[in-house]
This record gives sequence, C-alpha cells and structure tokens, in this order.
Amino acid sequence: MQTVPPALERLIRELSRLPGIGPKTATRLALYLLRRPAAQAGSLADCLSALHGSIRLCSGCFAFSETDPCPICGDARRNHGLVCVVEQPGDMMAIEKTGIFRGVYHILHGVLSPMDGIGPEELKIRELCERIERGNLEEILLATSSTVPGEATASYLVEQLKKYDLSVTRLACGIPMGMDIKYADRHTLGHAIETRRGISG
Amino acid sequence: MQTVPPALERLIRELSRLPGIGPKTATRLALYLLRRPAAQAGSLADCLSALHGSIRLCSGCFAFSETDPCPICGDARRNHGLVCVVEQPGDMMAIEKTGIFRGVYHILHGVLSPMDGIGPEELKIRELCERIERGNLEEILLATSSTVPGEATASYLVEQLKKYDLSVTRLACGIPMGMDIKYADRHTLGHAIETRRGISG
Repeated sequence: MQTVPPALERLIRELSRLPGIGPKTATRLALYLLRRPAAQAGSLADCLSALHGSIRLCSGCFAFSETDPCPICGDARRNHGLVCVVEQPGDMMAIEKTGIFRGVYHILHGVLSPMDGIGPEELKIRELCERIERGNLEEILLATSSTVPGEATASYLVEQLKKYDLSVTRLACGIPMGMDIKYADRHTLGHAIETRRGISG
Repeated sequence: MQTVPPALERLIRELSRLPGIGPKTATRLALYLLRRPAAQAGSLADCLSALHGSIRLCSGCFAFSETDPCPICGDARRNHGLVCVVEQPGDMMAIEKTGIFRGVYHILHGVLSPMDGIGPEELKIRELCERIERGNLEEILLATSSTVPGEATASYLVEQLKKYDLSVTRLACGIPMGMDIKYADRHTLGHAIETRRGISG
C-alpha cells in the first residue's frame, strides 16, 4: 500500500542518490522542505536547474567557472609562474580560503586509481604538460591529498615533470596523514603552503 | 575576490539552509552534483518544484497526501475506530513500515512547546476533538515520542480526552527513553504497538 505520497517518495529517492545521504536523512530533509513554504523548495530547484547551464570548465586551469578564463586565471595580479596542482575544485576552494596562495591552479579532476580504471589519461595531466610547454612556468606545487592515491598521483607527476626545467614542490608536513586536504583547517593548510618543500626526486 | 562561481555559491547557500547540512557538506553535495551529468540535478530540481503543488493535507488525518482523503483514510479495510495520534508525518511513515498497525492516524504537526510559542491551538488538537465528537471512535493510541515535549503533549491529550467515552492508550515501554520514535527500529516499534497499555489517568 502506498502510504508515502508519490511526489514525496520521488524526492526522497533523488535525495538518497547524494553522497552521504541515506534514506532516513533523505526522508527528514524532504519532510522538512514540505513543512516549509513552497518558496524554499522552489529556490533550491532554481539553483539546481541553473547549475550546469551557467558553469563550465576554465580552459586554463579546469576550475568550475561562469567565465573563461576563470577569475583567477584572468587576474594579472596573481603569479602565473606558480601553478598549484589539486585533485578537485573543492581543494582549490579550500586553498583560496587560506588567503596565502597567490599563484594559479591546475585541477586534475581526480586521482590515479587503477582499480577504478582511472589512469593518467582520465586526469588533466596531458593538459598540465601542454601548459608547461607553452612556457613561463617556474614552479609546480603538488597539492594532492596526503592519501595513498593522492601521494601516488604526486609521485607519478614528479616523474612526468622531471624533463622540464622547473621547480616541483609539495605541501609541507603538518597536514595529518590520511586526511583529505579540503577538510584541513585553513591555518594548518596556510602554514603548509608557506613551508612547502622541494622534491629531490 | 570571487573564486567560487556565483551559481555554485547560490546552490551551496540554499543547501546549507537544510537541517543538519553545514557549509562543508553543502559544498561537497553541490560539487558532486556539478561533476555528475546535468540530468541528475535537473531531476532533483523537478522533484522539488513538483513537491508542494501535488501534495496537500488530508482533511481527515492531516497526513501529507496527493489525494483527499489520503490512501489510509480512504481504505475501508483499515479500522477507523482506532486512531493513532503522532507528532509528525515522519512518525506515521515509521509506524506504517512496521506493518502491524491497522487503524488510522491523526497528525498533530508538532508538540506542545511553550518556550517556542507552540500551544494547543498550534496543533491539530481541536480537530482531533471534533473527529471524536463526530463519533464511532473506540480507541485513541497516543504515539507521541518519549521525549519531554512528547510526553507533555500526551499528558495534555489524556486530560483533554477524559470527557469522551473511549479508551486512551500509549505505546508500550520498550522504546528507549529520549529517543525520537521515527528513529526506532521497526521491530521495537512494532512490539511497542502490540503491547500498548491503558492509561489509568
């Protein structure tokens, strides 16, 4: 017997597809929205509908942006010779919040994970090499997470970047092992950027 | 400097308004949706847009429903002489999942909470009395949560219902004290319905 209205059940099912949201949390959120004025659900629906239409990837750093180049790549005051390589846009957002990094970014959109079929071709590694070959880069700061796949990706990049004449650095110790960098507090993360170390390779 | 695209920031802000979703979780969910095909965000948006338009309150029990009466109030096989009084629609959904209760419901849409300005008039208590006065009810099962406001609401209802000639029952012991009933496992909750006890008043 159908005791949950179909429109409510559909919303619960869609919310349950989000990471970290189980059926109970989805039910709680859906019932909350139903008790609130329709404007709140409508406003959330509008934001969701507009999301993909207005956001693209920056052709320089592959960040999510409404403009191409993105505000950071288009900012002449940033140091365009220093490129910070991160796994995901969320990592870039965490680093920007420290207010300490004045270079630009390169977003890999993932980490090497052979078990999931993610090799170098699935990440923006070729694009990073092309960017280096266009010249004027002085330093690549590898800011992948200090997890096993993050470290493996950094090691792979160190090998790939050996042939270029530039400095390759890694975030300083200070970030707890196994912690995803986007969850580090901004002070620890800021300090780690300031004390980044060279890689002897 | 605007490093998060405005469309993404608006979505993060809207998601942060949901209960239990902080800015970090909202950011994680928004970035997840951005990485997924646009169809997933679109589908969630459609469900949200359709929510309030298709769901109303049943005029019998005040459950959320697409029809009036709701499927339970309209079901001749249910025992319409036995009314289970719950705080919220989520509680009714939890009880329905036990498969044990064959009566009908009455949803209060809240609990007495003088500190928050919620008195008897803010709940569907008058409507419950009117429903009793229309006749044919034999038993009222008070299934408010075993929390302080839930117990206070049940006590208030016991007083209000004394003047009527019907049996007033309460869910049996077995539900851990202080636990919201919608989080109880279905076996505990089903057992509590089967062993409900009379109130001597």
